This record gives sequence, C-alpha cells and structure tokens, in this order.
Amino acid sequence: MSITDRGVVEYIGAHADDFLADLRAWLAIPSISGDPAAAADVARSAWWLGGALRDAGFPTVEVWETPGLPAVFAEWPSADPDAPTVLVYGHHDVQPAALADGWSTPPFEPTDIGDRLYARGAADDKGQVLFHLLGVRAHLAATGRTTPAVNLKLIVEGEEESGSPHLAALLRERRDRLACDVVVVSDTGMWAADTPSTCTGMRGLAEVQIDFHGPSADIHSGSFGGAVPNPATALARLIAALHDEGGHVAIPGFHSGVGELTEYERESFAKLPFDESVWLGNAKSGAAAGEAGYTTLERVWARPTAEVNGIWGGYIGPGRKTIVPTSAHAKVSFRLVDRQDPEEIERVVRAWVSERVPAGIRCELDFGTGVRPCLTPLDHPALQAVVRAMGRAFDTEILYTREGGSGPEADLQDVLRAPVVFLGVSLPDDGWHSIDEKVEKPLLLKGAEAAAYLWEELAASRRGAAPGKDDR
Amino acid sequence: MSITDRGVVEYIGAHADDFLADLRAWLAIPSISGDPAAAADVARSAWWLGGALRDAGFPTVEVWETPGLPAVFAEWPSADPDAPTVLVYGHHDVQPAALADGWSTPPFEPTDIGDRLYARGAADDKGQVLFHLLGVRAHLAATGRTTPAVNLKLIVEGEEESGSPHLAALLRERRDRLACDVVVVSDTGMWAADTPSTCTGMRGLAEVQIDFHGPSADIHSGSFGGAVPNPATALARLIAALHDEGGHVAIPGFHSGVGELTEYERESFAKLPFDESVWLGNAKSGAAAGEAGYTTLERVWARPTAEVNGIWGGYIGPGRKTIVPTSAHAKVSFRLVDRQDPEEIERVVRAWVSERVPAGIRCELDFGTGVRPCLTPLDHPALQAVVRAMGRAFDTEILYTREGGSGPEADLQDVLRAPVVFLGVSLPDDGWHSIDEKVEKPLLLKGAEAAAYLWEELAASRRGAAPGKDDR
Repeated sequence: MSITDRGVVEYIGAHADDFLADLRAWLAIPSISGDPAAAADVARSAWWLGGALRDAGFPTVEVWETPGLPAVFAEWPSADPDAPTVLVYGHHDVQPAALADGWSTPPFEPTDIGDRLYARGAADDKGQVLFHLLGVRAHLAATGRTTPAVNLKLIVEGEEESGSPHLAALLRERRDRLACDVVVVSDTGMWAADTPSTCTGMRGLAEVQIDFHGPSADIHSGSFGGAVPNPATALARLIAALHDEGGHVAIPGFHSGVGELTEYERESFAKLPFDESVWLGNAKSGAAAGEAGYTTLERVWARPTAEVNGIWGGYIGPGRKTIVPTSAHAKVSFRLVDRQDPEEIERVVRAWVSERVPAGIRCELDFGTGVRPCLTPLDHPALQAVVRAMGRAFDTEILYTREGGSGPEADLQDVLRAPVVFLGVSLPDDGWHSIDEKVEKPLLLKGAEAAAYLWEELAASRRGAAPGKDDR
Repeated sequence: MSITDRGVVEYIGAHADDFLADLRAWLAIPSISGDPAAAADVARSAWWLGGALRDAGFPTVEVWETPGLPAVFAEWPSADPDAPTVLVYGHHDVQPAALADGWSTPPFEPTDIGDRLYARGAADDKGQVLFHLLGVRAHLAATGRTTPAVNLKLIVEGEEESGSPHLAALLRERRDRLACDVVVVSDTGMWAADTPSTCTGMRGLAEVQIDFHGPSADIHSGSFGGAVPNPATALARLIAALHDEGGHVAIPGFHSGVGELTEYERESFAKLPFDESVWLGNAKSGAAAGEAGYTTLERVWARPTAEVNGIWGGYIGPGRKTIVPTSAHAKVSFRLVDRQDPEEIERVVRAWVSERVPAGIRCELDFGTGVRPCLTPLDHPALQAVVRAMGRAFDTEILYTREGGSGPEADLQDVLRAPVVFLGVSLPDDGWHSIDEKVEKPLLLKGAEAAAYLWEELAASRRGAAPGKDDR
C-alpha cells in the first residue's frame, strides 16, 4: 500500500461516521421527482446537497433551475495548470416509495442493519453522489494538496427518475460551464461485492410505433375474410421479418456502425462469474434465446435488438368477434450499440417497412426521440484510470461490464463531446426501483476511496497518454 | 305460362294488399332479441305469427319455449302418401333499431315509399317468413289442392340475431317433430333484382384464442431484451406462418375435406355481374388480396381462411414503455368449406402450434364451438327444384351464390341430417343490421310465387330423382 493509499484509507476511516450521518440526513428528504406533490422536497434535496458541497470545500456551488426540478452544479478548479477537467454525473431525485408498497422499514427513515443502510435512494443515487464529497476530501488529505489534481465539476440532476426530460437542454445551455475532458458517471453498480467491475457502455435506443390501417372500419370476416388484406396479419408478417432465422435483425443497413466484440472483450465478459439460471430468474424467463453466436451477456450488452414492446388491433375483449380489424398497431424498440445512430435507424426502418406494406394497407410510422449508444473503448486512458483507481481500492482485478439499457449518459457524451466512464459500487440486489432499497456501507466507502485515487490517476494519464476531447 | 303459374300469379295479386297489411302489423312489434327489455315483444311476435299461421290454414301451430326466447313451429301434412317433408327455417326476432341511429323513418312504424316497405325486419327476416303463408295459399288455390304437395313444416326461431344460442338444443330435443327430407332456408338474399340467384352453401367456422406466455411479468427490454424470447414476436411469427407466400393456409392437414371448385361452379360464379370496385367499397377496403389462383368471390365463398380477429400484448397505451411483455394473445378464426370439420381443424391447429412454440414460451389454446360448413351440390334434386321454382317466378336464369359467413343453417343440416337449400329474395342494399332496412315489395311477392311453385317442384323431384335423407 502506497503512502497515498494509506492516507486515503485512514482519512475515510476517520470520517466514515460523519459521512454516513450526512447521508442519512439527505436520505430522509423524499425527493421523488415523479410525484408533483414532492417538488418542494426535491428542491430541498438540491439545497441540502449544495450546502454539503460548500462544507466539503467546493468553492463554486450553484443550484440550477430548469423548467422542471433543480440540478446542482459544483466546481473545484485545480491549481495545476495542466490538470484535466472531470465532470461527475449523478442525481439527487429518487423513485417513489411508501411503506405500504411492502417495505420492511420506512423508506425515508434511513435504517442501519449490520453493514447495510436501508432507505430509498441509498444506492440510487444519493449514496453514490455523496461518496464523491468524502473522496475528494480524502484525496486532498492524503496528497497534501489544497486543490484537486483535476479540475473537478459535479452535475447532480433532479429528474433522472423521471426520464431526465430537461437534462439535454440544460447540458446544451450550460455547455461552457460543464466543458470537460471526461465524464465520470456514478449511477451504476458492480457485478458483485467480490467481483468489482466498471461499466464501459450502455446501449442506445430507437423507438417506433407502427400503425397499419386496413378496412376503414371493422368488417365481417365471413363476408369479406380471405379476400382483403388483414392489417393484423400483415403487421405480424412485418414483425416476423424483423429477425432472420439466426435471430439477427434482418433490416438492411441496421447494423451500420455495429462493431464486433474483440476477443479481449469476449474473454473479459467471460471472466465474470455468470450463472444463467440466476440470470433467468431475474429475467423472469424460462429460457435464454437470441442472436446465434453470442452469449447471454453479449446479447444484452453488445448486440443491437428489435423488440416488440406492445401490439394491439381488432377485438380483444372476452368471447369472439369474427372481424377483419380496421387496424393493427405495434410499439417496437431497437437497442443500439457502438456507433449506431438513432436517426440512421429511423431511415433504414422507414425504407424497409415501406417496401413491405401490402396493397390495401396504409402504414404510419411514429418515431420517438432516440438515444445514442455510449461506449468507451477498453484501452481508453480514462477507462484505464478508473480500472487502476478501483484496483487500488478493491485490491483485485477490475472486470468490465456494460449496461443493456439506455440512459442520459448518451447526452453527456454527445453534448459535451467527452468520453464517459463509470464509477459505481452498487450491487445488483440493492433494490433499485424496488422495495427495501439498501446500500452496503463498506462498498460506499470503497467508492469514496476509488474516487480519491481516480483524480490522481486521471491527472497521471493526462501527463502520459492524456484523454482528450473527441478522441472516441 | 302454365295454368298453375297463372293461378299462382292471380292469387298473389288478389291477396297482396292483405299480405302487406299483415306484414306491417308484424313489423310494428319490436321483437329485438338482443334487448332483454324487449323479451315481451319477442313473445308477442311469436304469438302474432302463430295466429297468422292458424289463419293461413296450418292445422298444427305451436309456440315452443326455450331457455331464451320462443320459437314458432307449424305443420301442414300433405294428403299424398309419398309427399316429401320440407322444413322451412326463418326467424321472427330482429336487430336493434332506433330513430336516433339515423333512420329516415321510425323503424317500427312500417313506411311505404314507392315499391319499398321500410321497417326493421322487413327483409331480415319477417318479410321472407311471411311470404311462405301467402305462397302456400297460392299453391293450394292454383292447384285446387286442400293440402300442400309436400308435408310442410316451419320452424321460426326468436334468437337468430343473438347468435341462435338455443337452436341446436331445440333441434335435438324436437328432432322427431322436425324430421324432414329437405330444409328450405328463407333468410338470405339474391345477387340483384335483375339477377335472381340462390345460395348453395355457407362457410363453417372454427375459432381459437392463442395465449403466449413469456416472462412471468413485463421485464425491462434494456436489461433483458435480445436474450429471452419475446412472446409478442413469437406470436407474430406464428401468425405470419399461417399462410404461405401464395396466401394458402399453411397448416398441414387443414385442407382435409376441401374440394376444388368444378369448372361449372367457377363458370356459374363468373356469370354473376361482379364489379370489384363496388365490392371493395362494401368491404371498406383499398385492395383485394388473398389466395393465389382464386377470384374474389371464390375466395369468400369457396375457400377456407385464417383471419386474425384481434391481437394484443404488452404496452398499448400512449407513449413508450420499453419492455419485453409477459404475454401476447390473438383471436384467430378459420372459415371452413365443403367437408372441413371444426373438430378436425382444432386437432391440426393444436398439432401445428405445438411444434412452433419456442422454448421459454408457454402456449394455451382455447377453441370455441365450431360451425360446420353447409354446402348443397349444384346437381342436388332439391337445389334444382329451387332453381326451377325461382325460374318460373322470375322468368330468367337463376344463378348460384354462396355465403361467406357461417350460420345456424349448419345446425339444421347436421342435427336433422337433411340438405339445406335457400329461397331468399332480399337484395344486398336492403340494409340488414343497418339503418333504413327495407324490402322491395314486388320481390317479396316473387318470393311467395317461387314458394308456391317450390312445393310442386319438390314433390315432382321426389317422384323422379327424389331428395332423400343423408344423400349429401
């Protein structure tokens, strides 16, 4: 253990109780962004965090109003002229929670049981935001610095649990204040307590509603059935054609920008202790299925998909009604990877569908706003700095994961034109969006420790092969 | 014109006004079987018809109660020992109707405008039941007989517009009383006023609800999508596989019992003046489509189908929800022809589906009670008797049609084990189940005339190549 590491560990050990007391105070504020009645609590949460950032020593702290709920911005410039600029992203709003949902303890009365702290937001995301305050203090104490080794910025939004409706606009408006060389997202987790890992990317998203219009009203399937196109049958044929027999998405041009996994990446995923029966239990599914030639983890992390999220048309009540329905509809979403572009996906899907609409069917396509995939190459210096920092904290090999979902991380990457890396210490069983959310206190302290090392590591990688803007 | 024909025409001409006055009285009774509040009116309608049958001379008239609404039975035996037995089928209940629906005249205040009589039930089916009372009187008057040339029976049910829920049981219970050599259905129509025709068959029906169960609850399409089976996608693939590229139903064994149309039948259909654009207007559809190698009329009359009547699963509200749905469902109905058997269809569909359910999907199939197809060969003596009787009334060639739908006629055929022929004079624009239902009074009188000839023709064909039981 280096001198710095010992200093960090000692600082964190000495201040852990204060840190946890602060966290409990913050967790007691029910900052539920999805509940309009809780808007004042979300604001209170923002101001609480602002005060805590001030107390931690950040010279600049601002609460940023949005058309929705407020975000908190903080900045602590480095005295080093060549210091890279880092933006930490997190959120201070939480999912709804009530004792009546089945919680074992009141969700906004933080409760310690052994090493665990139970409360809504303990892991998602207040605990993982707050460890940065402890981390930067430990970083300074252990290195004897008065300013961080990086120009440290934080943006902590208040609407993540509501889909971050104003984040992209806020990022664009405040682009100059938020400018950075790398974004550190602390809103994810690790593979397991004994398998620390870092996320290297998230899938993007394109969504479309497909409306097939046939007869101008429901018509009698006896009088007309078999002699006019049935929009439900036509839509089923379209959906069936989304994939080929190997489960690959069959839309020409769809895979533009999709890179194949390297052997190193596949081996890295394969190192993760994976129990498919446990995974299937979480998926509430009886069998794994998907694209031929890929493992389950590769399918959800590194492969694009086409999923029917909903389908409807015709008579869906009890009993029978022998009609050819007037219309049929499907909501289809595509998960995207690598450099797939939601706008390009819209273009190729429109072209593909337009060639497949049978005579007598009128088709409408309504695309939502897409989300770009987010991926940092494994050899990126900023990602390697995260791996080194976590390795120092956990004293073991740090493995790589990805997220199958899609999040505001893509906006950070795209608007700020900076690579995104992930420092999160939550566990899969921490109860995000569920009852009995908790965080493992020793892991939160490991998160603070890794954060303390990360500013050193990023500054060092800047001096070596520094992460620059636009280098992904 | 033969002496008989002149006698029939003269009798009908002399009694037309009385006949129409009677019809108006019956039409004023709102015998809506679908409206529980109208049950007393349906009963009143049954008793009105019973009285009219008595007045017409039927020696036996009975109102038959059912667990639902009453049917009327009447019988007039022939004095001829070798006379065939004929059962006329019709119904005395009507569809709902209200001035507020958009009728031009009050639906239960029969209104004469030119040759037309407007009222709910004028064509469907009171007018076409009542012409038999005038017809049998004309038959007796013109031939000088005191009993009909056939043993004449009528069964006029009161629940046809509600799906005939108690007809099959009634037929089975009263099988001895209803025993006959041929059933004459007067509840259909003709191709056009200047193109008289008779229906030779109706399609049957098999119905199934398909339930595909995937994950035990909706799951996140980001976390799991692409690696577990999606029940909506799987169901779409099943539906897409219902037909081959030529639009033929692709289920092995499905076509067992389907006969190919003869050249004579195809030529006979082709003689009908058919305007596809008019047909498409009625079908509210923009294009004809279906099984390769068949015309539109052949597709709806003589070919079996597989139609999706309804489909649903997953998120179908506004906006987006990125899930893999827990389940997907479809209601599919099959129209059947010739000797296809609904029970056999259930067997082959179950076998076909069971081979196509992917791992991880649990499938449930719920079949309804099927309806067998009903078809009388063109060379059947009873059908030829109808053609001759109508030919005498209309003085032109009688063409052949079919019905694409499925009706209680199959129960008549199956329970009574007798061939079914159709004597109907309604027109496609008579407004069945719609507003401004009407009947063309001159055509109703032609119906009475054809009925008058039909008893002679059936008796003659019995003496020649007589229609016997079970000969189809």
